[in-house]
Amino acid sequence: MDLKDMTVLVTGGGGFMGSHLCEALACSGAQVRVIDNFASGRPGNLAGIKDRLELVNGSVADEKKVRQACCGVDAVVHTAFPMAMRERSLETDVMVDYLAGLFNLLKETIAVNALFVYISSIAVYGNQQYVPVDEKHPLEPVMLHGAMKLAGEYLCRTLAHSHGLKAVILRVADIYGPKNTRVSVPVRFLMNALAGQPLRVFGSGRQSRTYTYVDDFVQAVLGVLITPAAVGQVFNIAGDQVVSMYDLALLAKQIANSSSPVILEKNMPSDGRQLVIDGTLARQTLHLGQPVSIREGLTKTRDWLLLEPGFYQ
Amino acid sequence: MDLKDMTVLVTGGGGFMGSHLCEALACSGAQVRVIDNFASGRPGNLAGIKDRLELVNGSVADEKKVRQACCGVDAVVHTAFPMAMRERSLETDVMVDYLAGLFNLLKETIAVNALFVYISSIAVYGNQQYVPVDEKHPLEPVMLHGAMKLAGEYLCRTLAHSHGLKAVILRVADIYGPKNTRVSVPVRFLMNALAGQPLRVFGSGRQSRTYTYVDDFVQAVLGVLITPAAVGQVFNIAGDQVVSMYDLALLAKQIANSSSPVILEKNMPSDGRQLVIDGTLARQTLHLGQPVSIREGLTKTRDWLLLEPGFYQ
Repeated sequence: MDLKDMTVLVTGGGGFMGSHLCEALACSGAQVRVIDNFASGRPGNLAGIKDRLELVNGSVADEKKVRQACCGVDAVVHTAFPMAMRERSLETDVMVDYLAGLFNLLKETIAVNALFVYISSIAVYGNQQYVPVDEKHPLEPVMLHGAMKLAGEYLCRTLAHSHGLKAVILRVADIYGPKNTRVSVPVRFLMNALAGQPLRVFGSGRQSRTYTYVDDFVQAVLGVLITPAAVGQVFNIAGDQVVSMYDLALLAKQIANSSSPVILEKNMPSDGRQLVIDGTLARQTLHLGQPVSIREGLTKTRDWLLLEPGFYQ
Repeated sequence: MDLKDMTVLVTGGGGFMGSHLCEALACSGAQVRVIDNFASGRPGNLAGIKDRLELVNGSVADEKKVRQACCGVDAVVHTAFPMAMRERSLETDVMVDYLAGLFNLLKETIAVNALFVYISSIAVYGNQQYVPVDEKHPLEPVMLHGAMKLAGEYLCRTLAHSHGLKAVILRVADIYGPKNTRVSVPVRFLMNALAGQPLRVFGSGRQSRTYTYVDDFVQAVLGVLITPAAVGQVFNIAGDQVVSMYDLALLAKQIANSSSPVILEKNMPSDGRQLVIDGTLARQTLHLGQPVSIREGLTKTRDWLLLEPGFYQ
């Protein structure tokens, strides 16, 4: 199927990942529909394509809005996720809204026989037990949002068995880029470097991660939409470089042309874990090109930060 | 810790599993508290011990009721589960209530530093990939209630990592016995045999399963409550006999002293799968005795059915 012939619903289309995806879909000629309650997303993120999309203003937890949003779609890409779930606090309402939203979407996707692209996270793996972490790695999340992402994966997989749902699961590694609403480590480093503030690196600074530049995430979703063989599969989405925190800080400093000091802080916060992710399967199956390098991704993000100095204010 | 010194909250205490557990806890000298909205449970199930328990009449989805119910408890045994989730229909409200209830309980259990005993199901395994199915078997539920039970398991495990929750997970194999609210196959066979109606067996009749007599489930929970080494573990709970559907029908017929015909029906419903479960780990870790045999379990259930002919009317 060609993207030009498709109507695609993007949940959380006003958010970081969602808005980049909507732009690419619109450029590819797809009919784009967005459902967002703009709890954390921003209408401004969609300003450049606002005449080329249909907007359903509301929460996915609202069954009627979801029914309206899913009418006639070929695919649903579920990027919406409550920011509050990344906190350590336990809020029943947040959990319940997330599940209600996911479930409403799954039901309607089944009803209209569309494809469901579930945006999961490498948080489903928990602490890495071997390197690199491929899709067969044990699933033992250690943070609440990982458990909920995994619960969602299992709902998709089970409804594929029991109700014929066509689903693809994307486990996205630490993602960054312009409009990064939950300020990720690369973006925070760049912001501090541009502001002349210290870049703080925790622990030894050697803990390494795989990052995903947002364009690579977008290309992966477009690939999924036009690759029938992707249905029923689970893919890691990640860049192909492994970067230590310390090297990332130095690179951000260099790219920002900054004289900020890079400071090692002994105390490691709980999320300072290593995660080296293998994204080969997606690149092969979806025929994706070479991922954006960290240097290029940081440079593009820097250029955006310089153009949009007020975004985070 | 001795059961006599414990206060135990049983969710769904008015249900089949819950009420048997409450009776055993009361007999062991534990303080028993029940929270139940009696959507599917019955006050009559607790008639024999109603003066020896505290009852919180309400839903676990009600945060205030849960806070009240958890006050001062040493352990929470979460047997409550919405019957409606075993249907093939997809009801957002049912899902949301289940998650809200589980989450409320987990939060309060953490707050009062109690033990959480999560009653899961062998439905988390899906189709068996090897025999017998031990706790390391892949998790690939094929029915919605299995996916939700599994989501609950992951919430427990993750909150153990992130918030210090003390949890034990029990994956219970097909359970039967007196007061079996969701009429299980052994109980249905007995009822039909006692009524002189045909016993219908689907497919070849050779598909075999492991059954759990309700007393063995109760003994396992009591074992968990007094075994510190159980914390953090996952156990299958099952009898030690594997019985084919056809043999089960013949045995039920014999025990009911019935002349009902046993009829083979070619069409197999979707839940007619084989499940041979290994319950060794629980028996060893919790020092449980020999499980109740199928013959003895059916005989006890028959005796109860004869005493309570109006229960299912």
